[in-house]
Amino acid sequence: MIYLDNAATTMRKPPQVAEAVVTAMNTMGNASRGAHAEALTASRIVYNTRVKLAELFHCPRPDHVVFTMNSTEALNIAIHGLLREGDHVVTTMMEHNSVLRPLYRHQNENGGSLSFVQTDALGRPIYEQFESLIRPETRAIVCTHASNLTGNMVDLDRVGAIAKAHGLLFIVDASQTAGAHEIDMERMGIDVLCFTGHKGLMGPQGTGGLCVREGVEIDFWKVGGSGVQSYLKTHPAEYPTRLEAGTLNSHGIAGLSAALDFIKETGRANIEAHEDRLMRRLYEGVSAIEGVKVYGDFTGAEKAAIVALNIRDYDSAIVSDELAQTYEIATRPGAHCAPLMHEALGTTEQGAVRFSIAWYNTEADIDAAIRAVRELAEE
Amino acid sequence: MIYLDNAATTMRKPPQVAEAVVTAMNTMGNASRGAHAEALTASRIVYNTRVKLAELFHCPRPDHVVFTMNSTEALNIAIHGLLREGDHVVTTMMEHNSVLRPLYRHQNENGGSLSFVQTDALGRPIYEQFESLIRPETRAIVCTHASNLTGNMVDLDRVGAIAKAHGLLFIVDASQTAGAHEIDMERMGIDVLCFTGHKGLMGPQGTGGLCVREGVEIDFWKVGGSGVQSYLKTHPAEYPTRLEAGTLNSHGIAGLSAALDFIKETGRANIEAHEDRLMRRLYEGVSAIEGVKVYGDFTGAEKAAIVALNIRDYDSAIVSDELAQTYEIATRPGAHCAPLMHEALGTTEQGAVRFSIAWYNTEADIDAAIRAVRELAEE
Repeated sequence: MIYLDNAATTMRKPPQVAEAVVTAMNTMGNASRGAHAEALTASRIVYNTRVKLAELFHCPRPDHVVFTMNSTEALNIAIHGLLREGDHVVTTMMEHNSVLRPLYRHQNENGGSLSFVQTDALGRPIYEQFESLIRPETRAIVCTHASNLTGNMVDLDRVGAIAKAHGLLFIVDASQTAGAHEIDMERMGIDVLCFTGHKGLMGPQGTGGLCVREGVEIDFWKVGGSGVQSYLKTHPAEYPTRLEAGTLNSHGIAGLSAALDFIKETGRANIEAHEDRLMRRLYEGVSAIEGVKVYGDFTGAEKAAIVALNIRDYDSAIVSDELAQTYEIATRPGAHCAPLMHEALGTTEQGAVRFSIAWYNTEADIDAAIRAVRELAEE
Repeated sequence: MIYLDNAATTMRKPPQVAEAVVTAMNTMGNASRGAHAEALTASRIVYNTRVKLAELFHCPRPDHVVFTMNSTEALNIAIHGLLREGDHVVTTMMEHNSVLRPLYRHQNENGGSLSFVQTDALGRPIYEQFESLIRPETRAIVCTHASNLTGNMVDLDRVGAIAKAHGLLFIVDASQTAGAHEIDMERMGIDVLCFTGHKGLMGPQGTGGLCVREGVEIDFWKVGGSGVQSYLKTHPAEYPTRLEAGTLNSHGIAGLSAALDFIKETGRANIEAHEDRLMRRLYEGVSAIEGVKVYGDFTGAEKAAIVALNIRDYDSAIVSDELAQTYEIATRPGAHCAPLMHEALGTTEQGAVRFSIAWYNTEADIDAAIRAVRELAEE
């Protein structure tokens, strides 16, 4: 099987990731629960993983790196915990439902309002709108770093500067970019960075989190056992405990820690360059085929390693099934939880076949994909 | 190291648990995301694990088994998602902060009120109070199945009958009992059962969930990507998707699935009997030592496999450290996130040293623990 569904989850991980999980399962107690060697091992590994993530994302305080089950939870925590009654939010047509649904909830339950930055024909955000949509009651800009459908990226330096100039919170969904693309919370002016561990970071499923700028006070989410300050009736207010309750997925976090080491050794920029090269090879190959329409902007310097396409008016689900069954190529069809992006691209009915590339893909994978698309287009 | 901190997390798991996690990490796509073989493998394993949990807990509908990161999250979801403004709740002095803090939040933010069933000198609940504390505005009984400090259990059949007679919701925290003790949601009249995967169920950390009786409508918690109904602005209302958003910890769930197979093959009742025998051996041994005070009720038929004690007026943290460093015995001291139970037992200052037993413990472990406690008591 040629696996090209890495934007859903990177199935191939560095071997040391699974090894680290197994070691953790055999040696770890419960982090922050007790002072025997096993519990301390768990606490140390969890803390070191915070340090590695803080370094990767330029988050000044490792103790402001909070672990969650996934980026959806991180986005819920940030959006629910920062927006107040009546707050207006600027977001984009590129968002995933993990951003949209928490924002719609803010709209419905909290009297909030939303404005959407539109996209051009290639699915790029119209940057001027980030500024023109700001109103007196605007409190935050919430946006993705890259569309999970097209791979188009948002220039976070540019948007962060706008947020800063207007005193707005800047909340970023890095689900599709963390691990492969540069993220610098300080330079980009990001207040809350939400990430997942099992995609570009190549860690286990069940890991993710948020990095919070110092001074940003996010309301409690789940509350409960914290291992510290047991006699307080309220959950402890200090980060990271503030947003973590109950036992962490320390086994998964140990795997994520090993994945972060692999990324550091390999070099994030090398990973990005490898994925970018394969993505452009795929784009060149498929865009030359008659009847194939590719979505997204391949003219810019930086893009997440995604090639979304349709063949003629074929149903994307049928094409993706053919790719899986006849060619043993794993892709993802359909709506991709990105309803507004499909509206903007006019693909609500057809969906799109998404090829998404990661570190372990090869030129041979890409060439097989191009051949398969060509054959299907000629049918 | 003799590991006797199993109430925090069972560190020794059946070997097939780690194997299943590794297999999952090498073969699984993202559950409910796509239709290629890897994604389907993930979906199937996740669904089968729901079926196994439903069978173990007598939850009539496997699709009402929801996965969370831990039992704390499950309890937050149930308490937040079922209690309404002004609702009164009956709970107990035996609760963990994972129950108490969500209830205090209900009290503070929701105008709710709480009544606590007191405990007797042995830390047993005074059952009459479950009924006498009920008021017209009472909506739910929320209680643990076993104290994480003493191991004393609550007779869920008895309390469930009271809840049913008064038309109350019955929410149970099974963190300390799932896997070793009988839980029958139907017979016990449980509306929501909250469990963790990494203690008695012997699965990986980062797993847990809630089993919901049909017809119990819990409000949304996190919302976002669901892999289905992408064009809905609200999160899908059907269980289990209703309470799950974003990528599950499918790698961990695969391990939990293998652990559930192990429990079924071994026999839950055999696990309970083994743990019970070791617990009583430890109790007999340490309670005979001068200067040792053991907490909890060892006269009843069923008890979670915990022996909590203090030696004279020694600080529990110092005793636990001595046990770890001199005897290589892992226990847990301090407050155990159970502040009211400590108040009831008069151990708020001293805490308690908790020995907690699981399937992989042996008589030799227990005898070593008894010898160590004796030596420390003679110092």
